[in-house]
Amino acid sequence: MVEHERVGELKTLLASRDWHALRRALADLHPADASETIGFFEPDEAVVLFRLLGRHKAEVFAYLAPEQQQNVIRSTEPAQLARMVSQMSPDDRTRVLEELPATVAHALLGRLPASDMKHSLALLSYPENTAGRYMTPNYVAVRPDMSAAEALAHVRREGKGKETLNVIYIVERDGKLVEDLRLGGLVLADPDAKVTDIADPGVVSLIDSTPAEEVLHLFEKYDRVALPVTDGDGRMLGIITVDDVLDVAEEQATKDMQMLGGVEALDAPYDEVSFWDMVRKRGGWLAVLFVGEMLTATAMGFFEHEIARAVVLALFVPLIISSGGNSGSQAASLIIRALALKELTNRDWLRVFRRELLSGLVLGGGLGAIGFARIVLWQRLGFANYGEHYLLVAITVWLSLIGVLCFGTLSGSMLPFILRRLGFDPATSSAPFVATLVDVTGLVIYFQVAAHILRGTLL
Amino acid sequence: MVEHERVGELKTLLASRDWHALRRALADLHPADASETIGFFEPDEAVVLFRLLGRHKAEVFAYLAPEQQQNVIRSTEPAQLARMVSQMSPDDRTRVLEELPATVAHALLGRLPASDMKHSLALLSYPENTAGRYMTPNYVAVRPDMSAAEALAHVRREGKGKETLNVIYIVERDGKLVEDLRLGGLVLADPDAKVTDIADPGVVSLIDSTPAEEVLHLFEKYDRVALPVTDGDGRMLGIITVDDVLDVAEEQATKDMQMLGGVEALDAPYDEVSFWDMVRKRGGWLAVLFVGEMLTATAMGFFEHEIARAVVLALFVPLIISSGGNSGSQAASLIIRALALKELTNRDWLRVFRRELLSGLVLGGGLGAIGFARIVLWQRLGFANYGEHYLLVAITVWLSLIGVLCFGTLSGSMLPFILRRLGFDPATSSAPFVATLVDVTGLVIYFQVAAHILRGTLL
Repeated sequence: MVEHERVGELKTLLASRDWHALRRALADLHPADASETIGFFEPDEAVVLFRLLGRHKAEVFAYLAPEQQQNVIRSTEPAQLARMVSQMSPDDRTRVLEELPATVAHALLGRLPASDMKHSLALLSYPENTAGRYMTPNYVAVRPDMSAAEALAHVRREGKGKETLNVIYIVERDGKLVEDLRLGGLVLADPDAKVTDIADPGVVSLIDSTPAEEVLHLFEKYDRVALPVTDGDGRMLGIITVDDVLDVAEEQATKDMQMLGGVEALDAPYDEVSFWDMVRKRGGWLAVLFVGEMLTATAMGFFEHEIARAVVLALFVPLIISSGGNSGSQAASLIIRALALKELTNRDWLRVFRRELLSGLVLGGGLGAIGFARIVLWQRLGFANYGEHYLLVAITVWLSLIGVLCFGTLSGSMLPFILRRLGFDPATSSAPFVATLVDVTGLVIYFQVAAHILRGTLL
Repeated sequence: MVEHERVGELKTLLASRDWHALRRALADLHPADASETIGFFEPDEAVVLFRLLGRHKAEVFAYLAPEQQQNVIRSTEPAQLARMVSQMSPDDRTRVLEELPATVAHALLGRLPASDMKHSLALLSYPENTAGRYMTPNYVAVRPDMSAAEALAHVRREGKGKETLNVIYIVERDGKLVEDLRLGGLVLADPDAKVTDIADPGVVSLIDSTPAEEVLHLFEKYDRVALPVTDGDGRMLGIITVDDVLDVAEEQATKDMQMLGGVEALDAPYDEVSFWDMVRKRGGWLAVLFVGEMLTATAMGFFEHEIARAVVLALFVPLIISSGGNSGSQAASLIIRALALKELTNRDWLRVFRRELLSGLVLGGGLGAIGFARIVLWQRLGFANYGEHYLLVAITVWLSLIGVLCFGTLSGSMLPFILRRLGFDPATSSAPFVATLVDVTGLVIYFQVAAHILRGTLL
């Protein structure tokens, strides 16, 4: 791999203390590559490499993982650090500051030039996961009465160092956003045309309090590379660029997937979470589920006499309850994702209910038939001995599976709706959560069905 | 909601057959909004609305869901249809053609102008989920010897109708890609500067066979709005834009999440998959898991005598095996996602193995302690009667949980690596799959531990 060759080469240069060659090798790297490469080194080596970086220092820093950033911070002079952080783009700076421990972040903020500090504090004052947190005030604005030629001249004067020039914003003197305008459109336009005539009619904009998932949805829907953010009165505050949104999409999907698996969101790569943090984030849910699952022992205890009289019943307990759990996991994963992508909304619940109930009946009927066949075949072929009433046991298993699968599909599909209605993240209804719910209920269903079918024979 | 007001308004206009007002109302909508709105109507109404669309027809069509597209295709004259499809951008056209049934797609292709047909066939000839499938040949290229002013004049001449003008490509006469260049950079540059001096050194490009997930990774890493695609010799073939990549990110996350939940990827929104397709995609995996889970009945049968002698053992079966399944779901969801995001690679397996083994020991020890306390407390408080050897039973549960959780975390974390090694998608190791594996093994662990601890007392 190219990456590993590069790391090897740098290690050799580092060992021979060839600072000049190291500096040159690092200067040739894209900031994203440089930060990735530095990530392969031990903390003290990483700091040496970081110091040898040239003008890209601030950009490379923004790409580093939080621990590596702290490592750099610890070993860099405060004044130099402040200079570097003030060179970062405002949205990158917000990202860095919000991931650092509060004390470190505050110390850094205090050393920034006044205007940078003001900007950063403004962005950090937005609640997490809202549009305000992801925006940058670094955009180019033109006035509605400008011609294309004037606007282009304005871009030439003001454009340097802006987050993006791909989209230009037409803003009134009072700060109200009028339209957005692609730079490409401006370049192609007749120089005398008015900018408001070049822009596509109907601007898509976000309010600063828009939640991150809605931001993502709008970017996807309208296929934009940047969207403007305004306050409630339509006054332009900043822009969000698509690269940040791509990160949001990945983070959101990661969080949902981890929650679906029954883990509290890690909020960092697997390798960068400390062992005890990881154990805590997994152990918390595991313990809650374990306590819930203890109800199975209570339920089983309730049917202890039935088990003692017909041990054959116990044999199928894992088969039946796990099938319910599986159908619940399936339903939960489908519904959670559909809700996240806005394919389904709260008011669709009844339609989903009907569909999942029907799915449960069909799937339960099918699995039950396989279970029935398995019991009858094993008995007839002599692989197992389920007693003289094996046919009744097989029917019990079949009917129980129908009931348990219906309960599974309904729990898995309805819990996300219910959690959302209660103000929780639908993804909280993890596969293990649904499975636990279905395990307990599944046992009750199974033993109730058994009590009806087997009364007077086995029970 | 604005959307529903809009739909209501259009329904009223449609009922009063006010074609003129309908046409005007539709013309004002962004293509994404128009297609979303049309999606709320019955098929025959949707076709009427679609016919009333003005110049945006092709764009709106590209946004429609596949069924709605087929609905429109069925009710549109072939010549008109071909005209519309040829107006679409090449990448949108690929997307539409690949989602249509093959016969419909071929009929459409046959009616396209020769050059469009050639382009489309070329793009469709790339394997699914490779860079070639997502690219468009609609970009602006300039020669390396041009000055900024010449390049800008070239953009003005050639730029109309291109997929994006945000990035311009410097291409040699023989088609070799030299650099890419942001339009913003070109606008800001000294008019006499050579284009090769304006471009950032070091172009990031993709080969046409690059898999979609790698494309996504590169866009994330380098924060680009477009990346060039070349053949193996570095000759420019087309570009991929970030809006398509955002869709890829969502699709990939959806697929992984559905697979994690134990469902074959639906490849369409929940609501748009027919009931029987959905049952098939869920039933297949459920049946496989059910057959695997039958081994639990075999395992339980193997320990039938132990259960008959000590019914108390059966009570804790669901608790123990489900805890193993939960820890496996957690591990699987973490590792699958970390592999998808390239936070982990194949060679990290040993490190993950050690970490997960340790997690299993710690988590199992903790849950086991809770289980031990529960049994002892319930016995002492008189909530349950687990017999005179309840302490031994409690120890059995504790030790079994340590074993089962270790097996759970290891199965959940190692299966994704193994599957990937074997050429499968790591996400195939779904939560239900891991749970089933752990259920069967968990039973064996539990009864083995019981046999050792309880020999001579209960057993």
